[in-house]
Amino acid sequence: MPPRTPIPVVKMDPKKAPWEQEKKPHNRWHPDIPPVAEVKTGDLFRVETIDWTGGQIKDDDSADDIKHVDLSCCHYLSGPIRITDEKGEPARPGDLLVVELCNLGPLPGDEWGYTGTFDRDNGGGFLTDHFPEATKAIWYFDGIYASSRHIPGVRFAGLIHPGLIGTAPSHELLKIWNEREGALVEAGENSTTLGGVLHTRPLALLPEPKGALLGDIPADSPQWSKVAGEAARTIPGRENGGNCDIKNLSRGCKVYFPVFVEGANLSMGDMHFSQGDGEVSFCGAIEMSGFLEIKTEIIRGGMEQYLTPMGPTKLHVHPIFEIGPLEPRYSEWLVFEGISVDESGKQHYLDATVAYKRAVLNCIDYLSKFGYTKQQVYLLLSCCPCEGRISGIVDVPNAVATLAIPIAIFDQDIRPKAGGPPVGPRLVTRGDVAKSKYDGSKPLTINPCMCGGGH
Amino acid sequence: MPPRTPIPVVKMDPKKAPWEQEKKPHNRWHPDIPPVAEVKTGDLFRVETIDWTGGQIKDDDSADDIKHVDLSCCHYLSGPIRITDEKGEPARPGDLLVVELCNLGPLPGDEWGYTGTFDRDNGGGFLTDHFPEATKAIWYFDGIYASSRHIPGVRFAGLIHPGLIGTAPSHELLKIWNEREGALVEAGENSTTLGGVLHTRPLALLPEPKGALLGDIPADSPQWSKVAGEAARTIPGRENGGNCDIKNLSRGCKVYFPVFVEGANLSMGDMHFSQGDGEVSFCGAIEMSGFLEIKTEIIRGGMEQYLTPMGPTKLHVHPIFEIGPLEPRYSEWLVFEGISVDESGKQHYLDATVAYKRAVLNCIDYLSKFGYTKQQVYLLLSCCPCEGRISGIVDVPNAVATLAIPIAIFDQDIRPKAGGPPVGPRLVTRGDVAKSKYDGSKPLTINPCMCGGGH
Amino acid sequence: MPPRTPIPVVKMDPKKAPWEQEKKPHNRWHPDIPPVAEVKTGDLFRVETIDWTGGQIKDDDSADDIKHVDLSCCHYLSGPIRITDEKGEPARPGDLLVVELCNLGPLPGDEWGYTGTFDRDNGGGFLTDHFPEATKAIWYFDGIYASSRHIPGVRFAGLIHPGLIGTAPSHELLKIWNEREGALVEAGENSTTLGGVLHTRPLALLPEPKGALLGDIPADSPQWSKVAGEAARTIPGRENGGNCDIKNLSRGCKVYFPVFVEGANLSMGDMHFSQGDGEVSFCGAIEMSGFLEIKTEIIRGGMEQYLTPMGPTKLHVHPIFEIGPLEPRYSEWLVFEGISVDESGKQHYLDATVAYKRAVLNCIDYLSKFGYTKQQVYLLLSCCPCEGRISGIVDVPNAVATLAIPIAIFDQDIRPKAGGPPVGPRLVTRGDVAKSKYDGSKPLTINPCMCGGGH
Amino acid sequence: MPPRTPIPVVKMDPKKAPWEQEKKPHNRWHPDIPPVAEVKTGDLFRVETIDWTGGQIKDDDSADDIKHVDLSCCHYLSGPIRITDEKGEPARPGDLLVVELCNLGPLPGDEWGYTGTFDRDNGGGFLTDHFPEATKAIWYFDGIYASSRHIPGVRFAGLIHPGLIGTAPSHELLKIWNEREGALVEAGENSTTLGGVLHTRPLALLPEPKGALLGDIPADSPQWSKVAGEAARTIPGRENGGNCDIKNLSRGCKVYFPVFVEGANLSMGDMHFSQGDGEVSFCGAIEMSGFLEIKTEIIRGGMEQYLTPMGPTKLHVHPIFEIGPLEPRYSEWLVFEGISVDESGKQHYLDATVAYKRAVLNCIDYLSKFGYTKQQVYLLLSCCPCEGRISGIVDVPNAVATLAIPIAIFDQDIRPKAGGPPVGPRLVTRGDVAKSKYDGSKPLTINPCMCGGGH
Repeated sequence: MPPRTPIPVVKMDPKKAPWEQEKKPHNRWHPDIPPVAEVKTGDLFRVETIDWTGGQIKDDDSADDIKHVDLSCCHYLSGPIRITDEKGEPARPGDLLVVELCNLGPLPGDEWGYTGTFDRDNGGGFLTDHFPEATKAIWYFDGIYASSRHIPGVRFAGLIHPGLIGTAPSHELLKIWNEREGALVEAGENSTTLGGVLHTRPLALLPEPKGALLGDIPADSPQWSKVAGEAARTIPGRENGGNCDIKNLSRGCKVYFPVFVEGANLSMGDMHFSQGDGEVSFCGAIEMSGFLEIKTEIIRGGMEQYLTPMGPTKLHVHPIFEIGPLEPRYSEWLVFEGISVDESGKQHYLDATVAYKRAVLNCIDYLSKFGYTKQQVYLLLSCCPCEGRISGIVDVPNAVATLAIPIAIFDQDIRPKAGGPPVGPRLVTRGDVAKSKYDGSKPLTINPCMCGGGH
Repeated sequence: MPPRTPIPVVKMDPKKAPWEQEKKPHNRWHPDIPPVAEVKTGDLFRVETIDWTGGQIKDDDSADDIKHVDLSCCHYLSGPIRITDEKGEPARPGDLLVVELCNLGPLPGDEWGYTGTFDRDNGGGFLTDHFPEATKAIWYFDGIYASSRHIPGVRFAGLIHPGLIGTAPSHELLKIWNEREGALVEAGENSTTLGGVLHTRPLALLPEPKGALLGDIPADSPQWSKVAGEAARTIPGRENGGNCDIKNLSRGCKVYFPVFVEGANLSMGDMHFSQGDGEVSFCGAIEMSGFLEIKTEIIRGGMEQYLTPMGPTKLHVHPIFEIGPLEPRYSEWLVFEGISVDESGKQHYLDATVAYKRAVLNCIDYLSKFGYTKQQVYLLLSCCPCEGRISGIVDVPNAVATLAIPIAIFDQDIRPKAGGPPVGPRLVTRGDVAKSKYDGSKPLTINPCMCGGGH
Repeated sequence: MPPRTPIPVVKMDPKKAPWEQEKKPHNRWHPDIPPVAEVKTGDLFRVETIDWTGGQIKDDDSADDIKHVDLSCCHYLSGPIRITDEKGEPARPGDLLVVELCNLGPLPGDEWGYTGTFDRDNGGGFLTDHFPEATKAIWYFDGIYASSRHIPGVRFAGLIHPGLIGTAPSHELLKIWNEREGALVEAGENSTTLGGVLHTRPLALLPEPKGALLGDIPADSPQWSKVAGEAARTIPGRENGGNCDIKNLSRGCKVYFPVFVEGANLSMGDMHFSQGDGEVSFCGAIEMSGFLEIKTEIIRGGMEQYLTPMGPTKLHVHPIFEIGPLEPRYSEWLVFEGISVDESGKQHYLDATVAYKRAVLNCIDYLSKFGYTKQQVYLLLSCCPCEGRISGIVDVPNAVATLAIPIAIFDQDIRPKAGGPPVGPRLVTRGDVAKSKYDGSKPLTINPCMCGGGH
Repeated sequence: MPPRTPIPVVKMDPKKAPWEQEKKPHNRWHPDIPPVAEVKTGDLFRVETIDWTGGQIKDDDSADDIKHVDLSCCHYLSGPIRITDEKGEPARPGDLLVVELCNLGPLPGDEWGYTGTFDRDNGGGFLTDHFPEATKAIWYFDGIYASSRHIPGVRFAGLIHPGLIGTAPSHELLKIWNEREGALVEAGENSTTLGGVLHTRPLALLPEPKGALLGDIPADSPQWSKVAGEAARTIPGRENGGNCDIKNLSRGCKVYFPVFVEGANLSMGDMHFSQGDGEVSFCGAIEMSGFLEIKTEIIRGGMEQYLTPMGPTKLHVHPIFEIGPLEPRYSEWLVFEGISVDESGKQHYLDATVAYKRAVLNCIDYLSKFGYTKQQVYLLLSCCPCEGRISGIVDVPNAVATLAIPIAIFDQDIRPKAGGPPVGPRLVTRGDVAKSKYDGSKPLTINPCMCGGGH
């Protein structure tokens, strides 16, 4: 047995466009996208990925690229990779595919990333009704640490993970997705309280041929049109994993994926150097190109053994994740709370989304007393290793959500103390993120407590 | 300076009824409930508390006490305690009251606790549409560890914390609470999607004289009637802290509370030996009597310095929590995911409550493969040190919530592996919780995947 | 089954002298000291202990009590406690006694402790050739934290543990101890390099009737004379456990003790609020009175199953310790190194004791640049949660030992940085420990690098 | 500012011999070895290293290469690297050189390592009097984890670190080293108790031209002869750092090195995938080739500011190490103890080396009950993340040393329990390490307790 140098199965060149790559990525979920490689269980193999926008965002000091980003062509995934057992028998529907993340990192020569908020009329973010303009911060990596010229005074270690990893859906599962998301859009915004969030963002992103890249399916073929017309968008996490954005899914972790198609057809991308729970600014982790070194196992028949479907079909299942012993942990935290009362003072019923929004807003306001702009903090909360918890979900009418910030990532002591936060010459101003003005007309959510303007 | 033996300021006898205690507790929030003690900043003082139901729940094997619990008289709080600075000047509205939790524990001689789910028609719980019957598990403590004859095969260390701690509201704040919660009830259940949760629980609990205990206010006085008629119920967390249920708020942690009335009037109770994020079964932590050893500081003018009100008034603020360096941490976790698609397969929009409900249901089904009943797991998830996270809150239309379970609390390996979970003689059945049949008529949520019945 | 309130088996009153206690402690190891209590396996029981000097050291600002301490009467142990199984059959020689430490703490009403170094002519310490005078620091406890008026600017959480816990030796084992320690004393100091440490301390403490307290053995009986004449002193750790000073042996840990006499005869004392690895100042942990809540198990025949004797007899074994999941951990450390070259520049061969001495001296000098006196740091290193490691033990001729200090226990940043340590007005002087002048004539170890003396 | 791709300054090809490398390494410490590269402070640069034996050890199943290893040519170091500040001014004697370890790993394509013990007559190890034969285990890496076909049933995550890193000594410091180590050898083995260790290993390794590789100094030049004749061997850690073998010195850590020559002349090598405290088997970590990505800072005049020399000269100092927040930690440990009584039962005086030897022997015997050979455990303790502590160093006459093993690295539960360790069909035999018979005649240390043979 030779030593286990990872077998390179997908290479990417971050200097090329997605469609120029040797093994073309895909940015839609569809069972008919053909595998670009095949590996056996037990193989240690390496997959490279481009950043989720396929190079649309630049290392500069303008947020215009964020403002005008084309979200129809994003989440470029490397794969699909067909998985077989050691005898060459493929993974089959009903199996569990165990994926162990052995190593992860940025692509050599491309050790940087970005965090942004989208313009309210082109993507938005969790707090888009408060912060409608596009913003951007660039991060450079010194080994395990990230720091940003746009948010000085903060430094933290990454928990590198794939924002997006999953198996291919079957035709049946794809149909379920398209129907339920279509129904949501059709019902329209009046039919939902939207988790209490002011609705200014798309309800869902339905299949859209524009911008689709479908791996090796020729772009002008009839098959392309068919697949592009029905392939699921990549934004939400779903039964196959996908955009689950679990910030701790790093070195030494495992995922147990349901298999829906022969060969499992595993794809991955959207590498994050670090992310906060919730990824609140949407373009929110430290987004980068990267590599994954991976091993797989197949648990034959494991779906029935371990996953209980819940819903109309046997396909209504979720993957399971296993966090390993090496997760880095900070030991002191400042914790901000939100309850399900919105910014206008209105009571909502056990709504964890409203409660988490309030916790995030509270934290932004608090940290802005220490020399950061609110936009800096918004981006920071999206990408630093903060924890978003559902602390109480039963005490009617208030859900309680909390956001915990590791104290050690700041170069100053951010705890409350007698005498108040730094003022005057003691207050060090910390630059700002790149911004691009919001030209739209949607109204801001105004904090009634602040005279003359939102925050 | 003498060594710092904690000054006993409130003693409780768990064998007596709440109204028989020497310093009567209170179970409503109201500014006019008079302080039972006064301490200075810097004092290390000890407060004892009775369990949240005031002794209604017994250490036995029947869940009938849970089923018939009187929720109008619960959350007995010790206090209020008036806080002054070292010169005797009281905390004043606008200050921050810093409360350091120096030590916490069960009351000597009363080292046991309980976890339960309420009957669907008398309190319910997060999954009451799945599990409508009252259940109960009794826990005994061996020092830092808890174990239960009703859920054998599990043992974990407690993170003892007060479920409920807060400062007294001012009259103005109390009015805000009563108005916004009243408006919710008035609007009724059709006006809300209820976070996607099937509505079978009260929308909110409005002021209710029945069952009120108001400390030293004489029970037949005109003042009693006035206060009882307007005092806020204790169930939800609010601006003053209250039922925040932050499971990590244990030894060595601090809370920074806003002060709304002169003296701050700090009260506390509802001690938990351990709780899972969300406290899903509602009567959900390991509930016990207990003691707190506490120190306070006053940050004069700290509300304006550190808290940004958001809402119609300056009172719309939240406390801040500081988690100390001693939080025990498990190192290996199994993580269950939920997305905002409900049990019927219907798509909801970025609804973290629905997503978390699905994550909890997934975990219950999974662990029930290892010899536990689903009711055992439901209670376990409510009280063991599991973490509930908002992993993704921006990827339309799906919120992603996760529930992470520490692997080390089980006496068996609960990871998926080839060969499947234990079956036949390998499967050890693990007893069951006490149950009390549901006699009501509300419909169960049926998992369409399971033929012939809900789970 | 009633809830598990610990059964009180030994009570101590810290205001009384050792010989006035209801259940007299003992300060020697001997098989004939009769048990003061009996417990069954599975019982949760509580043992109280007085401080190791039996009240000789006072909470004041003079070190004279340390200087003149009577070390012939120290290490007062509570017990022996006879252990039986649930049927009443006692633990027997050859069994393993499993002791689980369920809870530990200071005695209520006596929440303080002390750290000291002894005078060079009366006990000394690891660095007695550098620091010959007696010193003392008093610590007060705020729940989990300790702080000292004698060492301001430092605060840390305790890892409460018994410095001394063990089973009684058999007559045969006692004879082995007395013979081998007697041989060391007889050979004299010239026959040993003493681990490279300048020999100014006793080689060993042989049996000594003066000061002996032997539990219930009447003080004027012939048995007393016999037992006192052969009973082992308590200073060193030995085959039965004893003074093992394992700083992490706290809540939730277990010890597996060999059993040498019927009933095991478990004794314990010398409670520490916190200790650094090595307990370098000798009177070095934060010494206090305290309580232990304990459970036991018996592994019948476990000595042969699990322990391999090494030495001339089957009794040459050691206990095994199990550290639980709750050990608090700091996350950032400054690490000082020592190699086996002594203060004069002389090379020693793989001598970990010399190497550790150098690491400790290096750390003392370093921290003294931040406003502390060297005596303060010496005491601090003895009692704070610092880690002493044998990093390299094979690279001839140098052993490498390291001492790691948690950065978070200081109220200033103690890392090296450009500009140097604080000087002038930036340097805050931090008081000092109590000191009592050394009147003896033994020579100091002079650091040749420092002109004119001092270390 | 471009993103921070590490600047490659030293490349190594593990398939070539040391003297064939483009930038020749060196295996001696000497101020006259010329720098191979120059970097500025703030630069992120990459240094590759070959394994410490320069390729003498092969990935096979024979230990003959270990037995016959040529130790005169080992510890091949990459460098020296000259460090300047951003203006090009070099580090100068008296400065502190801050080295931040940003990233570390095995060389791509060479992801394996080895652990061995040397033959007693050619290097030996800490327990060579018990285990005289050469042995070897090969480890393969799956990302962060290592596993070995020679020690099945164990898997652990690496804490990759450089075994050897340091600045160049000045001529004056070199002279001090050679004199003190020469004096030790000259005095001979009878003049020392050798820390209680049976002396069968070299006392020290003095300068030796044979096998020397001196970077770019031409091998047949007069300078070569001079330098090779006086250059220090690399085995021990010394004032310049060197072979400090600090197992936690991994990603995100810093070292503060004294600077003795202009430019600092930093060298490094001997990369370890993982090591246990003490590196007991001598060839003991998981030895590998590797890379380091590094940043430096200069603290001008920092030696005087932060380091106190102790000894005859200002050069008698040590580096300081800073461990970052990301150190992975296991949470449950089994701890073995040793006291300073040797295998024959003889009492030694506060000798931490003897105590640690006994702790290691105790652990080997214990784990050998679980299906491992003693040789497997000996190697395992040398390279797994176990912690060696000096627990007590003052309790005459016994030093107490402890060895803590993380329980989670085994695929079975290694805790003691009723019923004893696995026997008969329950005992899984776990293969063995490669061995090469000891042909020498030095006597074994016999454990008197074992009839008919040592272990």
